[in-house]
Amino acid sequence: MRLTLENDPCACWRGDPRPAQRSFSSEKVTLKDRSLPNPSWSKDIRLLFDHFMKKCEDGSWEYLPFYTSKSSHKSQDLKTRCPARLPRSPTDLNLKEEQNSEARLFTRSYEEGLGFEYAMFYNDAEKRVVCLFQGGPYLQGVPGYLHGGAAATMIDATAGMCAIMVGGIVMTANLNINYKRAIPLCSVVVLNSQLDKLEGRKAFLSCNVQSVDGKTLYIEATSLFVKLDPNKSLT
Amino acid sequence: MRLTLENDPCACWRGDPRPAQRSFSSEKVTLKDRSLPNPSWSKDIRLLFDHFMKKCEDGSWEYLPFYTSKSSHKSQDLKTRCPARLPRSPTDLNLKEEQNSEARLFTRSYEEGLGFEYAMFYNDAEKRVVCLFQGGPYLQGVPGYLHGGAAATMIDATAGMCAIMVGGIVMTANLNINYKRAIPLCSVVVLNSQLDKLEGRKAFLSCNVQSVDGKTLYIEATSLFVKLDPNKSLT
Repeated sequence: MRLTLENDPCACWRGDPRPAQRSFSSEKVTLKDRSLPNPSWSKDIRLLFDHFMKKCEDGSWEYLPFYTSKSSHKSQDLKTRCPARLPRSPTDLNLKEEQNSEARLFTRSYEEGLGFEYAMFYNDAEKRVVCLFQGGPYLQGVPGYLHGGAAATMIDATAGMCAIMVGGIVMTANLNINYKRAIPLCSVVVLNSQLDKLEGRKAFLSCNVQSVDGKTLYIEATSLFVKLDPNKSLT
Repeated sequence: MRLTLENDPCACWRGDPRPAQRSFSSEKVTLKDRSLPNPSWSKDIRLLFDHFMKKCEDGSWEYLPFYTSKSSHKSQDLKTRCPARLPRSPTDLNLKEEQNSEARLFTRSYEEGLGFEYAMFYNDAEKRVVCLFQGGPYLQGVPGYLHGGAAATMIDATAGMCAIMVGGIVMTANLNINYKRAIPLCSVVVLNSQLDKLEGRKAFLSCNVQSVDGKTLYIEATSLFVKLDPNKSLT
């Protein structure tokens, strides 16, 4: 079964590819797709984006937009959408009201161009997600290079999205990441994640990170995601 | 041999525990220790911080401050300090001037309280680093919980710091992370990393993430760091 916002109320936290079909309050919500090109994007990521958008025309690939709104960053808003699957809400966790209202998805928490700039595409026949990623200047590790944690974050996000598209809402259970070469800061790389195996509630996926021309392999990783049990607490 | 800023010109990118002994330009540099308590810190992390500072009094533990200055975030500044070990500088990578001047260490890139708030302590006899970490509202994954990538980032930073303190400047080669339970957003956790084995240029370390009371194990991880060869490019 393919997910929709109706049967998958938690999809928002991974970046649901479909805009909200209805508003959850009387407030007017202005949606913005954060995966579309913006002025901070380099020529490399723009060309790749156009290339994959062209691949979408015959239906073999699907562009996965990421909608945010003024209110969509707020945990309270997300909580409203996810009542059943996340028994312990931010409020239950005694977050200060200020922290609660300030909560943002990590990979979309920076201003345009400074952090994680990316767009994802899904191939259903191949159970594969490709992520075009440009790591901004705030993601630095060794001077001039992307932080290993920022790369791990995008691997988690890409493989996690693939697991969601294949069959449901998941939590990361394992990431095993082999760093082969350092990724230059502000360069564009391509993450490629695909489903290797499904075993009950477990989804095993692999993910690699390559240069735009495919000649440099920066990272190889495997991952395990577990489908959430709506009757169990996360903590 | 213990590291000093003089024999370890790259220490700055992991957060060198000692302030700069000399200025690298005529500009007056105002240092600020980002690891000290600030108003965003909860009672939990303040108490733990005081507890470990007390442990430092007999010399068994060492507090590792993290100094930043107006100019210390800049890659150009870091490049000046690391000419030999990083043959490919940000300038060589054709970063736009704006990106270059905006470069920030990922784990210190957020405003106070929004992202990574942490302090580290080192025990030389045990070859162990403890990191007290409070993940801010911008590090969200599942609503109300810390993003797996943010946790991976702090594991990389803590184990990496332990590897540096043990013997030199390193790059992450592998992170293998088992997520046991989701970490509530804005809560305080304790990362504990220690050296398991040294093999030539390879340092094997383990790291776990626990609740403040030690009753909840959130994450178990192993890692491999490789000492940098100053004669080789990173890419």
